[in-house]
Amino acid sequence: MRVDVEEKVLSENDKLAVGLRERFAAQRVFCVNLISSPGSGKTALLERTLEALPRTARVALLTGDLQTENDARRLARAGFPVKQITTGGTCHLDASMVGRALGEWNLADIDILFVENVGNLVCPTSYDLGEHCKIVLFSVTEGEDKPLKYPSIFAIAELCIINKVDLLPYVPFDLDQAIANVHQVHPGMEVVQTSCTQVRGIQDWLAWIERRRATAIPV
Amino acid sequence: MRVDVEEKVLSENDKLAVGLRERFAAQRVFCVNLISSPGSGKTALLERTLEALPRTARVALLTGDLQTENDARRLARAGFPVKQITTGGTCHLDASMVGRALGEWNLADIDILFVENVGNLVCPTSYDLGEHCKIVLFSVTEGEDKPLKYPSIFAIAELCIINKVDLLPYVPFDLDQAIANVHQVHPGMEVVQTSCTQVRGIQDWLAWIERRRATAIPV
Repeated sequence: MRVDVEEKVLSENDKLAVGLRERFAAQRVFCVNLISSPGSGKTALLERTLEALPRTARVALLTGDLQTENDARRLARAGFPVKQITTGGTCHLDASMVGRALGEWNLADIDILFVENVGNLVCPTSYDLGEHCKIVLFSVTEGEDKPLKYPSIFAIAELCIINKVDLLPYVPFDLDQAIANVHQVHPGMEVVQTSCTQVRGIQDWLAWIERRRATAIPV
Repeated sequence: MRVDVEEKVLSENDKLAVGLRERFAAQRVFCVNLISSPGSGKTALLERTLEALPRTARVALLTGDLQTENDARRLARAGFPVKQITTGGTCHLDASMVGRALGEWNLADIDILFVENVGNLVCPTSYDLGEHCKIVLFSVTEGEDKPLKYPSIFAIAELCIINKVDLLPYVPFDLDQAIANVHQVHPGMEVVQTSCTQVRGIQDWLAWIERRRATAIPV
């Protein structure tokens, strides 16, 4: 019975997500949905991403958390449009939250929409936000076994970012094994390594975004 | 309508949790429920805990994950009874899973039952497992803002463990601010600092367990 209700909630979400996807397509907005544990560095990655972009880039961001406007404040410093979604107790973003948050924005002014999900490696996996792709991020402090223990998100995501590689000398993390674990769950998945404190890998990540965007929204 | 169903699921869980709590009380089992993000170090903390205990300690463990028996394998090395609960896709442990996992064990042989929840700082908060207390753990690599962003678990837990303090020299983490954030959400909450790679703080944590157990199960 619980499964039935979850399926109903998800199917209502799916309908809203279809509407969002159509809006994104019509307005040529490329949308990515970033998913990770709390504290893996989603906000830091987006900070470095915004710093690396020209000020004329047509980029906007939605950032989800149970509470606080902290992340929106951090991201707003770069000068691009940002909105915080505070979910209260809810463990994931859903399509209705994204729809409401987009409310006043003119999507025609946006080329890339980054959605930073609530920190949670499980629940956001099931919720379509109308995005072109989900991206999973985990950090070298979390252990190389995470893809095996949380396979759903690694199976569905199109890119895996391994973050905080500057900490590799100080933690027991086998990078080759981590990548092998990613590929055990998702053969051939692209992996980008980043450090947000040492600003490494950001260009690789931006290049991936540009390639994926060109596929999603052909000229 | 969704809220109603969630309340129904939770109230069914609560009934089962009451049954577990009565069994624990009758058999004088002290039960703690460890909750954190994926990769904060719950399993490593339990490994160091088991190593610090005498081989005669009457301790048992349940460890939850979406997939893999990895954690049970790691914990079994110390020689104490361990059972893995793999939830499939479910983002938390519930009382029925704990009841089933306890199935064959004679609770009269157990003084302390450690339950390591699925790595998730949100959903496990709502599920009573019949435990005496929830304990929240986060690591210095996750950022000092976690108590403010995920206040539910910090409000309900009785102890906060700040783990991986050996990495403090390498990460931008303000320990005083982190503790202030814990106390903003939960005034007076006890905080223990640990490092599982350098085996620091384990005796503080064990001392807390013994004190709390003495309150829960008076001689």
